[in-house]
Amino acid sequence: MNEKARPVLTTAEVNELLATIYPELNAQLGSYQAVDVFPGGCTVRLNADGRHLRPGGTVSGPSLFTLADIGGYVCVLSHAGPDALSVTTNININFMRKAEAGPIDGHCRILKLGRSLMVFDIDIVAGGQTVAHATGTYSIPPKP
Amino acid sequence: MNEKARPVLTTAEVNELLATIYPELNAQLGSYQAVDVFPGGCTVRLNADGRHLRPGGTVSGPSLFTLADIGGYVCVLSHAGPDALSVTTNININFMRKAEAGPIDGHCRILKLGRSLMVFDIDIVAGGQTVAHATGTYSIPPKP
Amino acid sequence: MNEKARPVLTTAEVNELLATIYPELNAQLGSYQAVDVFPGGCTVRLNADGRHLRPGGTVSGPSLFTLADIGGYVCVLSHAGPDALSVTTNININFMRKAEAGPIDGHCRILKLGRSLMVFDIDIVAGGQTVAHATGTYSIPPKP
Amino acid sequence: MNEKARPVLTTAEVNELLATIYPELNAQLGSYQAVDVFPGGCTVRLNADGRHLRPGGTVSGPSLFTLADIGGYVCVLSHAGPDALSVTTNININFMRKAEAGPIDGHCRILKLGRSLMVFDIDIVAGGQTVAHATGTYSIPPKP
Repeated sequence: MNEKARPVLTTAEVNELLATIYPELNAQLGSYQAVDVFPGGCTVRLNADGRHLRPGGTVSGPSLFTLADIGGYVCVLSHAGPDALSVTTNININFMRKAEAGPIDGHCRILKLGRSLMVFDIDIVAGGQTVAHATGTYSIPPKP
Repeated sequence: MNEKARPVLTTAEVNELLATIYPELNAQLGSYQAVDVFPGGCTVRLNADGRHLRPGGTVSGPSLFTLADIGGYVCVLSHAGPDALSVTTNININFMRKAEAGPIDGHCRILKLGRSLMVFDIDIVAGGQTVAHATGTYSIPPKP
Repeated sequence: MNEKARPVLTTAEVNELLATIYPELNAQLGSYQAVDVFPGGCTVRLNADGRHLRPGGTVSGPSLFTLADIGGYVCVLSHAGPDALSVTTNININFMRKAEAGPIDGHCRILKLGRSLMVFDIDIVAGGQTVAHATGTYSIPPKP
Repeated sequence: MNEKARPVLTTAEVNELLATIYPELNAQLGSYQAVDVFPGGCTVRLNADGRHLRPGGTVSGPSLFTLADIGGYVCVLSHAGPDALSVTTNININFMRKAEAGPIDGHCRILKLGRSLMVFDIDIVAGGQTVAHATGTYSIPPKP
């Protein structure tokens, strides 16, 4: 992102919105939250526990994918506005290292915020190491 | 896949193995299973219910991603052998249409089965429509 | 693609169009052509020669990527119409085997043809083997 | 990349190596070069001219893909050593904005340098704007 779009929601507003529109997120999937929203990006966190592990005791791919997807969703909600009924159209994720239970942070950058598409990437970091990286696209529906 | 590698496990054996090595899969994530294993590929199924939905009442991206990841895992287990401690290194997924609760089938093809990498793709079909498509790579550890 | 959209251009019309709007294609990049257009997809070909090789004497990644990109472009032109000034927004490509000089065919499927996005995949085959596979998205501009 | 692997070749050595092992690169494909090699990454450049344009007068997707592929190759050569006969196994590229003829810089980060795989990403910048972003994997053959 070059023009550093300014967010239209605060971190607290995004978390309230997530809890309202997506109650399954934490009931079913565990502890996902926005921890920061800033011009051109955001930081999201997974507090990984036993529910997020796969064979071998490491955090599962779907749990990290969910963090990436939520990172993009927080970028869209915070920068394109809370009424945007946006959907993911594509995510590409690389898994690089194993992550153990504990806090896992996703550092998101908005690479493009167009009228109909937002492109972002996310560095997923645990224990000081990049454990995964993803790039994705959200489709933003036209404003009424 | 061109040489049509033959599976070394049956569908029933794969499901038993999944239940043994990955008990969280169905306890936490819901109803994922292998429904067919054949030379060069497999079919996996998600019986999507309320746990798998996102805002709007459609099956969530992470639920479809999980089906893709399991499709690749079933391909590796069935074709490279049950002792392979393989891990996903990359998945790219495109979401094309909304899917409602109900059975969702993933039709997997092994595109390459090498010594250290397996590449596969998966057509994810619900209600007669392709709702998502993914391509992925598993890393296969060296045999001892 | 499930609804099997019908093409609005023949194979010959697509090749004429490519030669008109993209003269650099064959002057600079070599011999790329459409060899078939059918409902829901197309086949494109690269006649690979010395210009397309990389160290080791095999067809280069960028040459195969170009074939994938042209496969998507032929899908859009033939199915969404010749006036569509479409652009690629994303391509993910896996390289599986080495390909030697000679004809290389790309078998394309349209996975979704929406109003603003087309998603496709392509199996790239040389010497009877799948040498690469790609998935991509074209953005289709609104009709005036 | 977290451990900031140190390069084993200088920028000048990488450019000499590219000219020796890949003479087609600049004869056929135009002006690609390494402009910097540093711990954990590199910068590569395409001096885009008429040969790299597509319909509409903007730099073509395959030209930007080639820059991404070379960025990964320079990362491998400089950090894993000049004798590594590495090949690309996967690249995912997002095209975000149009780029005009002129210098186009690719800023590469090594996300993981393992024994058999290297994962990298690249921000492709022209005229102060990110025009494309790619992520890729190179397979590194075992040392003899």
